[in-house]
Amino acid sequence: MEPTSLDFETAIFDKEYVTLGGRREAIVRGGRHLFDRLPAAFEGVNQIAVIGWGSQGPAQAQNLRDSLQGAVKVVVGLRESSSSAPAARAAGFTEEDGTLGEMFQVISDSDVVLLLISDAAQAELFPQVFKALRPGATLGLSHGFLLGHLSGVGQEFPSGIDVIAVCPKGMGPSVRALYVQGATVNGAGINASFAVHQDVSGRAVDRALGWSVALGAPFTFQTTLESEYLSDLTGERSMLLAGVHGIVESLYRRYRDQGMTARAAFLNSVECVTGPISRIISSRGLTGVYDELADGDKEVFARAYAAAYPVGLELTAEIYDEVKSGNEIRSVILAGQRMPRFPMGKIDEADMWVTGQKVRAERADRDDVTLNPFTAGVFCGIMMAQVDLLLEQGHPYSEIANESVIEAVDSLNPYMHARGVAHMVDNCSTTARLGARKWAPRFDYLLTQVAYPAVDGDRVEPAPFDAFEKHVIHDVLRVCSEMRPSVDIFVE
Amino acid sequence: MEPTSLDFETAIFDKEYVTLGGRREAIVRGGRHLFDRLPAAFEGVNQIAVIGWGSQGPAQAQNLRDSLQGAVKVVVGLRESSSSAPAARAAGFTEEDGTLGEMFQVISDSDVVLLLISDAAQAELFPQVFKALRPGATLGLSHGFLLGHLSGVGQEFPSGIDVIAVCPKGMGPSVRALYVQGATVNGAGINASFAVHQDVSGRAVDRALGWSVALGAPFTFQTTLESEYLSDLTGERSMLLAGVHGIVESLYRRYRDQGMTARAAFLNSVECVTGPISRIISSRGLTGVYDELADGDKEVFARAYAAAYPVGLELTAEIYDEVKSGNEIRSVILAGQRMPRFPMGKIDEADMWVTGQKVRAERADRDDVTLNPFTAGVFCGIMMAQVDLLLEQGHPYSEIANESVIEAVDSLNPYMHARGVAHMVDNCSTTARLGARKWAPRFDYLLTQVAYPAVDGDRVEPAPFDAFEKHVIHDVLRVCSEMRPSVDIFVE
Repeated sequence: MEPTSLDFETAIFDKEYVTLGGRREAIVRGGRHLFDRLPAAFEGVNQIAVIGWGSQGPAQAQNLRDSLQGAVKVVVGLRESSSSAPAARAAGFTEEDGTLGEMFQVISDSDVVLLLISDAAQAELFPQVFKALRPGATLGLSHGFLLGHLSGVGQEFPSGIDVIAVCPKGMGPSVRALYVQGATVNGAGINASFAVHQDVSGRAVDRALGWSVALGAPFTFQTTLESEYLSDLTGERSMLLAGVHGIVESLYRRYRDQGMTARAAFLNSVECVTGPISRIISSRGLTGVYDELADGDKEVFARAYAAAYPVGLELTAEIYDEVKSGNEIRSVILAGQRMPRFPMGKIDEADMWVTGQKVRAERADRDDVTLNPFTAGVFCGIMMAQVDLLLEQGHPYSEIANESVIEAVDSLNPYMHARGVAHMVDNCSTTARLGARKWAPRFDYLLTQVAYPAVDGDRVEPAPFDAFEKHVIHDVLRVCSEMRPSVDIFVE
Repeated sequence: MEPTSLDFETAIFDKEYVTLGGRREAIVRGGRHLFDRLPAAFEGVNQIAVIGWGSQGPAQAQNLRDSLQGAVKVVVGLRESSSSAPAARAAGFTEEDGTLGEMFQVISDSDVVLLLISDAAQAELFPQVFKALRPGATLGLSHGFLLGHLSGVGQEFPSGIDVIAVCPKGMGPSVRALYVQGATVNGAGINASFAVHQDVSGRAVDRALGWSVALGAPFTFQTTLESEYLSDLTGERSMLLAGVHGIVESLYRRYRDQGMTARAAFLNSVECVTGPISRIISSRGLTGVYDELADGDKEVFARAYAAAYPVGLELTAEIYDEVKSGNEIRSVILAGQRMPRFPMGKIDEADMWVTGQKVRAERADRDDVTLNPFTAGVFCGIMMAQVDLLLEQGHPYSEIANESVIEAVDSLNPYMHARGVAHMVDNCSTTARLGARKWAPRFDYLLTQVAYPAVDGDRVEPAPFDAFEKHVIHDVLRVCSEMRPSVDIFVE
């Protein structure tokens, strides 16, 4: 399938074109100098509601308030007696000045409603939310989960409203931290994608772009709400979270079985992925990893890549089908219903992750981990398989690069490097955590059962690696790297 | 939920009641002396079609033909140019005498149609099958998959036909082999459940019972088509296939990590489960395993049981939800569509299973494996969790005992003991294989991440084991063991 052709018109911001993989994509460059255009972008909007105070809520509420400087009132809406109220008050949103209130009241008082509650809460509360929205209001989402859920239960968004999305390509705390840094460091921020799903007012594009610019996104790309949730859910269930988890579990065990100490196995698997491999890809792309290797190691990389790629392609195809069919979202809803009885256990007590805590505690400097060519080959092979699967499914190049490569090496892996993969898996959104628990073991098993025996038995089909060096993604990543924010991801 | 209350009336066979867990269930005892009642059971039926020649097809076609002795014609229907035609001819079904033909022709010529094609083929071909059925025909199934699929796609069985099921509690080759043995050994055979889903003719019960008796079932229990597919799919995804696979993978790795040789780890995990544990449960129930242990080992068993039980309950609850919601069947259909591009890989090349081949080849006699109390505790804990989950969901006791315990210890585990778990996982039905690939790693990961650290950290909640000794299932299994066929499962 050809990548989706998208474009948009804006009277307020400056649209530019970039060429990715030979195709033109329209983007908007952000920056603080554009904040004075925000009142125009939000013309007719008296109040913006930020509903929820989880990961994105605190970041977006504060960034919007700071960027709009009073031109539009930003009000936080929470459930009655929410345990998050003290945190919202501490961030300056209070009942006294009317910037903190009960969520349905806030929704019905606002012109733009950014619904940043958890996926489970969205699935549970959407009928009341829709009912509370004013006619002509704008509903804003930060990912497409709700569209997926509505499709699964045969429902639709109300027809009389605008539905838009701005999806920052990073976790909430980073969206806030880099915004704050952006006051002094030019270009700091988290890129975002935006989508216009319903445009009743004729102003949906500019409101979405205004929202993204106000959040501090250095670059804003276009997508559709469906494309966003398909690639987002697939990405976190494949490369970004479950895949990397399964990869390092299988490699750690392989290296232990080959006689490495626990520490050496951890360094050659987890640390290698979250450290040097991610850093090299971030600055020099996937070919940068290969170029770094000595000739003999290049061969090891190539064999590992070619053996892992089919595993990644098969599983990512399965994941994509499961997401697209609605199964994955139904599973998340069902898991939410079981959760009072079966709370999710932590994974960080297994031997491997206890070893990891010690390794991180002893870490002298960031360069003490060498680039293991086998680990690199497996990681890059699975990463490229996700790229190819999303290409087949017609996603925009910017989205493919972000959901397959950039979020991994610039956002999630550095976080895992600081805190551990297990910490990441235990502390991201419920939807992502469930996905990691479901799919990581599949990557682990298929690599262990199929890919590694093929390498050890010298039966690897070389074809997947033959396509590596001339792959279109390298050019896409090169262009994207020019749009990379100037400041590395923030890890507390 | 209370177990479902079922009963039936038969004018042809002798209904008996058994008391399971304090509840009465109606059953029919089989035997060759009843074959002269089959013409009455199939009154009005001139021709029975057996469609498909996979696992159940060859067994059922031959058993029916031999039992009916010409009173009703048994005809095999296959797809045009089916590769199974030579095997069917070798079994005596030929075009020349009109007992072998093109499937849709055979369907439209028959009064009873036993649809024994693969799940994927049922999902693909059901509209044509329904169209080909005569008005007033009887459609027979050997498990409830098609009902699950129809519910998922919003379709129903045609209203003018009888829909019945007879579900042998063993693989096709065993159904045939024990039937043949039954000619000389009294009581040999595979028990079956039956269900009447639509009874337009008023003769559905007797046709179903006649079918089961003709297959050689020593005992026939009652269920519903929905209850059958929910428990069948859940059972194979939990204890019967995926669960046992994940359990032994996690235990093998644990024992290796604790310093055992590959051979010792295999003996203490896989061989222990498929050998002594299964044999003891088969003859003396779950308490038999516990009673066998010395006092110190009883404590190890109890801790392992209590740590594993919550993992089994959580995952079996998830599996049940996924099956009931239709997700699992949709996944199977989607996987079937991907299979031309992504054929299922074999799992038997992983180190553990290569070790297993050696262990089996060197096996001196069946008693060289000792009963590992930790392995036994984990296995019994997960098994009991499935029992409890199916109890909660209101399944009949006979079905719970069969799908959780009896099929495991009398059918599948002995087969795995002879051929290997990996061989079993690689060679059962596509639906079951997909389930094993999906769920085995989940059992493995949750045991490794949650249950074993709890044991090692001395943080096991004892409650699950406290309920072990007085559990109702022990009485149910005791009664069921009186209905156990006299001949062990056949493994070529």
